Amino acid sequence: MTDQNLSLEINTDLATRIITDFVRTEIQRAGFERAVIGVSGGVDSALSCVLAAKALGPEKVLALFMPYATTAKESRLHAQQVIDTSGVQSETIEITPMIEPLLADIPEDELVRRGNIMARIRMLVLYDRSASFKGLVVGTGNKTEILLGYSTLYGDNACALNPIGDLYKTQVRQLARALKIPSEIINKPPSADLWVGQTDEDELGFTYEEIDRLLIHLVDGRYDLEACIAAGFKKDFVEALLKRIRQNQFKRMMPPIAKLSNRTVGYDFLYPRDWGT
Amino acid sequence: MTDQNLSLEINTDLATRIITDFVRTEIQRAGFERAVIGVSGGVDSALSCVLAAKALGPEKVLALFMPYATTAKESRLHAQQVIDTSGVQSETIEITPMIEPLLADIPEDELVRRGNIMARIRMLVLYDRSASFKGLVVGTGNKTEILLGYSTLYGDNACALNPIGDLYKTQVRQLARALKIPSEIINKPPSADLWVGQTDEDELGFTYEEIDRLLIHLVDGRYDLEACIAAGFKKDFVEALLKRIRQNQFKRMMPPIAKLSNRTVGYDFLYPRDWGT
Repeated sequence: MTDQNLSLEINTDLATRIITDFVRTEIQRAGFERAVIGVSGGVDSALSCVLAAKALGPEKVLALFMPYATTAKESRLHAQQVIDTSGVQSETIEITPMIEPLLADIPEDELVRRGNIMARIRMLVLYDRSASFKGLVVGTGNKTEILLGYSTLYGDNACALNPIGDLYKTQVRQLARALKIPSEIINKPPSADLWVGQTDEDELGFTYEEIDRLLIHLVDGRYDLEACIAAGFKKDFVEALLKRIRQNQFKRMMPPIAKLSNRTVGYDFLYPRDWGT
Repeated sequence: MTDQNLSLEINTDLATRIITDFVRTEIQRAGFERAVIGVSGGVDSALSCVLAAKALGPEKVLALFMPYATTAKESRLHAQQVIDTSGVQSETIEITPMIEPLLADIPEDELVRRGNIMARIRMLVLYDRSASFKGLVVGTGNKTEILLGYSTLYGDNACALNPIGDLYKTQVRQLARALKIPSEIINKPPSADLWVGQTDEDELGFTYEEIDRLLIHLVDGRYDLEACIAAGFKKDFVEALLKRIRQNQFKRMMPPIAKLSNRTVGYDFLYPRDWGT
């Protein structure tokens, strides 16, 4: 593979076509016509929402905005912009009263535990509304986030299908620009918005530009540590990302089952949805 | 394959050894020593709890009993019996106050939606306690339940590892008897206990004995519809189970991602936890 194949630049028309076909096909294949999606005001959920609306028609998409007491005001404005510009159906559900009894026992400074509870309550509400709306839950995790495991298992990473999981964060931004998502949503510092002042890049310790450039070498280019160093990446940076990818593999797979029989779910029994008669 | 291989009878000593090795290895491999497990008073969670205690030592296992207002009194007694006889650590967490704000908008007769919320709140509490206890969540789903999809996605089917996912329900009972789990737990009618009077066999429409005998033909024996009929199973029964297995495949796989690059998570990027340096 030459370095030319390691460009993060994508063909946005082609990506839009592939993704909208995917959303339509996956939802129909499961016997549905509609989608439910959690919008946060960030660019990932904005892009997934716009793509779902293009794929299914905006009236078939329900966007749920689920703010907590500490959710940034800006997030509310941006979520509303996404809903308005995509023309989807929407509902705002305040999670604060649902969360309070759960947070009661958790010390104020345990931000990750508190953040995971918020992410999981949002999953719970999203799945419940998907039942009443008769739609499938469309995910909003990008490739960078999935590889680094920067998400809550059974929380924001829970979905029935993921339209943008093969786009790095910088590619999400490129496609968002092409689809005319408001620039203030694309350009603001990415944040899970689980506590005040949280930003992805502070937590990860690197910028998305740096991370994506390295990830495309490691994952798509199959460069190893030495090859990455030879290509100009700092050793500490490569090792840090390799470690994160490895440590978070459990979020990218089904839980392992103790194998006892000659045909075990997940190992020998792997039939797709359309198995059988 | 001859019919002899289609016996549901298992070697309980061997199964115990394989499962306890699996639990120990998987937990250590992830860098942990402890386990957290939700016990309901039913035989599946009783067996998983006893096996985890054997594998890790009872002091390294935290059993959480999470009753709701409608939880059967019997379930409380049986959960306590499991905790007492296995010697594990335990905590009882009433989920009623956590659930009420979530159930407020859901009609009383929408039992499945209400049940799914209970199952998911229990997942949320279990995962939160796994963080404070520094343990992994051990699952309690059996092979029958997994194949039929008789569980809540991101609810009771959520775990880090599953010790009994390759044992049919009737095999769970056999192993539970061998491990001296109290017979009242083994012999009572199985129930998700999400509403008063719910039983698995009423909901599924068949007994576990019937279901397991057919499943071992379909799955382990690779019999098709015709072969099952020739073996004496009723056509309607076989078709009903085939349909259920097929319709619930989505619960046994990671959500599909729209493929755009040459290396996509879940398709070409499948490295195990111990990938890399």
